[in-house]
Amino acid sequence: MAKSGWTVAIVGATGAVGGELMSVLAERSFPVKRLVALASERSAGSEVEFAGEPLKVAPLNDSSFEGVDLALFSAGAAVSEQYAPLAVRAGAVVVDNTSFFRMHADVPLVVPEVNPAAVDVHRGILANPNCSTIQAVVALAPLHGLAGLRRVVYSTYQSASGAGRQAMEELKDQTVALLSFRDPPVSRFPRRLAFDCIPQIDKFLDDGSTKEERKMVEETRKIFDLPGLAVVATCVRVPVFVGHAVAVFVEFDRSITLEAARAALRDAPGVVLTEDPTAYPTAVDAAGDDPVLVGRLRVDPSVPHGLAFWCVADNLRKGAATNAVQIAELLASRGRLAPQVH
Amino acid sequence: MAKSGWTVAIVGATGAVGGELMSVLAERSFPVKRLVALASERSAGSEVEFAGEPLKVAPLNDSSFEGVDLALFSAGAAVSEQYAPLAVRAGAVVVDNTSFFRMHADVPLVVPEVNPAAVDVHRGILANPNCSTIQAVVALAPLHGLAGLRRVVYSTYQSASGAGRQAMEELKDQTVALLSFRDPPVSRFPRRLAFDCIPQIDKFLDDGSTKEERKMVEETRKIFDLPGLAVVATCVRVPVFVGHAVAVFVEFDRSITLEAARAALRDAPGVVLTEDPTAYPTAVDAAGDDPVLVGRLRVDPSVPHGLAFWCVADNLRKGAATNAVQIAELLASRGRLAPQVH
Repeated sequence: MAKSGWTVAIVGATGAVGGELMSVLAERSFPVKRLVALASERSAGSEVEFAGEPLKVAPLNDSSFEGVDLALFSAGAAVSEQYAPLAVRAGAVVVDNTSFFRMHADVPLVVPEVNPAAVDVHRGILANPNCSTIQAVVALAPLHGLAGLRRVVYSTYQSASGAGRQAMEELKDQTVALLSFRDPPVSRFPRRLAFDCIPQIDKFLDDGSTKEERKMVEETRKIFDLPGLAVVATCVRVPVFVGHAVAVFVEFDRSITLEAARAALRDAPGVVLTEDPTAYPTAVDAAGDDPVLVGRLRVDPSVPHGLAFWCVADNLRKGAATNAVQIAELLASRGRLAPQVH
Repeated sequence: MAKSGWTVAIVGATGAVGGELMSVLAERSFPVKRLVALASERSAGSEVEFAGEPLKVAPLNDSSFEGVDLALFSAGAAVSEQYAPLAVRAGAVVVDNTSFFRMHADVPLVVPEVNPAAVDVHRGILANPNCSTIQAVVALAPLHGLAGLRRVVYSTYQSASGAGRQAMEELKDQTVALLSFRDPPVSRFPRRLAFDCIPQIDKFLDDGSTKEERKMVEETRKIFDLPGLAVVATCVRVPVFVGHAVAVFVEFDRSITLEAARAALRDAPGVVLTEDPTAYPTAVDAAGDDPVLVGRLRVDPSVPHGLAFWCVADNLRKGAATNAVQIAELLASRGRLAPQVH
């Protein structure tokens, strides 16, 4: 019996997010007829595992997307820039995990719990938001529905895995080096991360913010379709392997009680609320799982209609792979991942 | 020749801050005639070093303060509660590093760069503020002078040493355990800190904030003498040994340019500003030194008259010992550490 389903390509199959994409596709029983694992020439030829079966990684090139229905990209912005249009031309729908297309006007930026209808109009490419943004907006969405977002202040605590698999290795190597009284190796981070926090993620922009901070501002606005929303962020890398945390301070347009906020978060899709005010989730709790864990919810008395909370999520899963697969599921269920004839 | 100067007692001489107090007194050539190192019965009898000389630690008891001019307390709030009044009765001036007296109306809460005149009226006890608060207000003071603080949002990245010497050991032990695939020991922190961030410092209060967060709010108001100032904080422990960082978002009453803010910080006592917008200080840079290092200064366009910045300081030094010794110096120079006749 021929397998039914879609032919799915993973671009960046040997990376940290690539591995999670294959795990999540299998876990969620996404209907995969054939999986095409793609990576750079350097990684091609190695083996990955999909649904318990070993799979040879093919080199990414201009003909990689023949017969592909769905291409999940996670190999850096430059790779997406070059190859996503080729994938679309070959007939695939692209869900891109990089920042390259996110702010393009004709590219939907989708968090399925927040703006699912955004998948309905696309021109072949859909973008997966920034990891920290995804987890924050999943938690903000039910509160926005209650009282209207007025201003959001983000401070992040982002793990090494956001910089990739080798960055995680580097954090480990740095830690071992320091505990052994040796100089820590530094190549994947702007400086040593072990036993320190680095207030720089991605490049600096002209206004003194970083590109990561700019992403959180612009992507929050785009996902909520609130182009004038006041948002500010400080993004910080912390010596954690997997799982990002965000301290969020929100001002709302209308009054919002703690009880109403709790009830909304309790019922919100994709959210697990820690209701005990003396308990809270951390990155380690979130690692390996999909929900956005929310805790430390409290009134912020320093503004009218203010709340503060803390949220954590697995940046490789909900912050990347799981959200991308959810977008693919949405596309399929809404008939936007049309069956291709090859 | 008899040594001139003061008889100084260190309460908590074997602790992390106690050790720094002795270092800072010596480094700054504070006129110490005699140093009395005090600690609990458990630690008494051990030796510490002051100005290159070994010194026997005496047990803290009711008669410890006979002949003492200045008592620097850093052995926990309960010890200060019990012994600081005894020290005052014995004729000493107390500079207390714990939270116990900080919010008492008749106890000055002093950061010498910010509110030096506060030392002039005291009843024997002066309080050293919370570590994160000290570094934040040193950076905020020159900006407040320019444009008037309206609202301050703090997110902290606080190191293990804020929980004491044994907590630092525990972070190391946890890290080694995890790298050795063993269960990490947890006793000094609410949960494992190694490779994670814990959004809890000190106890929880009824409003869902922690005592540490409350301290940052109330102490900022008291130091600036702005009882109605809007302040909110999320305080987070990070797996760093020494040095706290704070991400600060400030709204001012009046307009403030980036240039004016830079100029004010450049000239501010106790501040070292990293002016290059693509460079920044981290906790590791601050560790072992006194200045508050400020970087990532930028406009926060999400509010009128908004700025954001990042500051780091050595929490054991400027956040504790150095500030306490600076208070003692101020007292001496302003004639408020009157020579005692014994």
